[in-house]
Amino acid sequence: MARMDAVSKRTVGKIEKLAEAVLASVKGRKNPFVEIPIRSLANVHFDARKGLVQLGKQKQKRYFFNVAMAKKFMQTFLVSDACKELVESGKTTSIRDLYYITKHSIGETRQNTFEEQDESDPIIEDLEVALDSLREELHLFASRKGSMVGPVTIRDSGDTIDLRRMGSGGWAVPSIVEENVVQIGKHEARYILLIEKDAVWSRFNEDKFWKREKCIIIQGGGQPPRGVRRMVQRLHSELKLPVYVLVDNDPWGFYIYSVMKQGSINLAYESMRMAVPSARFVGLSSFDKDRYELPMNVAIKMDDGDVARARQMLAYPWFTGKQWQREIQEMIRSGVKFELEALSRRGISFITEEYLPKKLKDRDWLE
Amino acid sequence: MARMDAVSKRTVGKIEKLAEAVLASVKGRKNPFVEIPIRSLANVHFDARKGLVQLGKQKQKRYFFNVAMAKKFMQTFLVSDACKELVESGKTTSIRDLYYITKHSIGETRQNTFEEQDESDPIIEDLEVALDSLREELHLFASRKGSMVGPVTIRDSGDTIDLRRMGSGGWAVPSIVEENVVQIGKHEARYILLIEKDAVWSRFNEDKFWKREKCIIIQGGGQPPRGVRRMVQRLHSELKLPVYVLVDNDPWGFYIYSVMKQGSINLAYESMRMAVPSARFVGLSSFDKDRYELPMNVAIKMDDGDVARARQMLAYPWFTGKQWQREIQEMIRSGVKFELEALSRRGISFITEEYLPKKLKDRDWLE
Repeated sequence: MARMDAVSKRTVGKIEKLAEAVLASVKGRKNPFVEIPIRSLANVHFDARKGLVQLGKQKQKRYFFNVAMAKKFMQTFLVSDACKELVESGKTTSIRDLYYITKHSIGETRQNTFEEQDESDPIIEDLEVALDSLREELHLFASRKGSMVGPVTIRDSGDTIDLRRMGSGGWAVPSIVEENVVQIGKHEARYILLIEKDAVWSRFNEDKFWKREKCIIIQGGGQPPRGVRRMVQRLHSELKLPVYVLVDNDPWGFYIYSVMKQGSINLAYESMRMAVPSARFVGLSSFDKDRYELPMNVAIKMDDGDVARARQMLAYPWFTGKQWQREIQEMIRSGVKFELEALSRRGISFITEEYLPKKLKDRDWLE
Repeated sequence: MARMDAVSKRTVGKIEKLAEAVLASVKGRKNPFVEIPIRSLANVHFDARKGLVQLGKQKQKRYFFNVAMAKKFMQTFLVSDACKELVESGKTTSIRDLYYITKHSIGETRQNTFEEQDESDPIIEDLEVALDSLREELHLFASRKGSMVGPVTIRDSGDTIDLRRMGSGGWAVPSIVEENVVQIGKHEARYILLIEKDAVWSRFNEDKFWKREKCIIIQGGGQPPRGVRRMVQRLHSELKLPVYVLVDNDPWGFYIYSVMKQGSINLAYESMRMAVPSARFVGLSSFDKDRYELPMNVAIKMDDGDVARARQMLAYPWFTGKQWQREIQEMIRSGVKFELEALSRRGISFITEEYLPKKLKDRDWLE
């Protein structure tokens, strides 16, 4: 067994406690159960004070001696056992891999523990909420994307990496960036800039915007994966730096901002550790087409799906403020959306040399 | 104007030559034209000696004084002019961005130079073949994915990066890895391992397989993007190292191998600089299910699309060898496919500790 760090010890402790409670039930001749917080929409709410989408207090009991629940009960312990092994051995793996690891036939039957990954994934989520451990702490990860550079030194798995000297490529943000893997070291950054698109991030990197502005630039290739969101959240909370989000002017871009800021409904239990309620939206705003004189031939017509999506957002509890209502209504009214690249019509480095510096100087952002 | 390196000077020279030829035509009162190699299937062939998919010698002339061709003629020069500016200023950008940069209305008309990006992309490809310059040399890139670590030092945009110390994340492979951006330095690698999947690459990185085996591991998140393929090709040709390709056992995995090895039909003109004809396929092979005792419950049933795709591959000129015919026929016969992760059923590090070492030791690969 590899020597475990404090985070891993705590996680293993939680898994053991879960198993011990079940054993105690068996010894006491009771029907063993696990208690799992309910993850459905009915148990999700927006905590306006914290600015986070959060899980409520409703729980369900999953009993062993219950025909409808027995299989899930068994699966829960199969997954928790595999995670315990992973954590103890100091290895991490993908949720796809976990499905294969835990898939086998039961005894002499032709019954499988899991038929498809869509059976094991919800069990992982159950376990995350039941243990109050992110999947990363269970040494599991989903897919990853994204890269990062800036005036900061990090340690990743024992290697010291200077993100001031990462060339055009940058450091590939891993899936798991928990404290036991990635530590944040010396830095001179003043803020964090999360950019929706890789190509736009490359513009900021090539123009050495991060050096001039002393900021950390990070991108997640569209909707940022968990590793990127968790990295932003850690940089924000540990370095006490503000976060700015730069996305396309379309409902999808607004949604990316929304998830980074408040968390998502599907994964409400992780908001606390993934979201940054104070994150600021620096565009593209629906009013930038006039403010930055974008010609109409770089506009893209919204389709019915876009309009419906924008209308939904008007009702989001965190978009009920006057500014956001005005912002979304202008998008619907105009019927057009804009990509960040549309700013290149004003010059290839317009976005790094004029657009964003002006936005920041004028404090022209939405919160 | 930024000081230009040799590669950039050559590219600008080619663009200028193209323009000068047109000017000379105008002065000579001739109808100016550009000559562009034809990129359709009819002009693509497999060069068995070189082991590459290549473009033939057919060309078409695009005239200025021709109603059907005038717009494309104009677009060609619009794009080439924008590329010249990019190269001269030492900046790079995405093909999406180039579309925005070159999009404007023509004179007083409401006619646009380009309506959509699907008009400007083919013009870029035209220009690549006409100039015999990769788009990367024109300072253009498409999307990127992928990461790399191993016993090698590189220089990227002036930064020295030790790929032996890149933690769990790795160096994010940029879109453009031409000699003027990325230089390959000191190394102790014995071979290059291209892995289809990020999650599997993470297993190889976490297990420090590259350190033990002295190899460079690189992944492109599925079908590797141009940056990754070009990087593999450069590592192969400059360091004289063999390339091994590790992919899923399905038609898509075979196709990934095929593109890395021979190039693709769509972009035959770039094969010479993107493909590695001597690349070796180290699985998953259709025979590995027996050889490595994979239980049948980790097999995935092939659907009709898979079978049709596999049948197509039987006819590929580069898969006509006995071994490959046997390989593909076994896949069709068995009706099942396997993901690399299926090997985890035998243990989480089975792939790094037993599977691949045995494959390499037994020289159990296909070429």
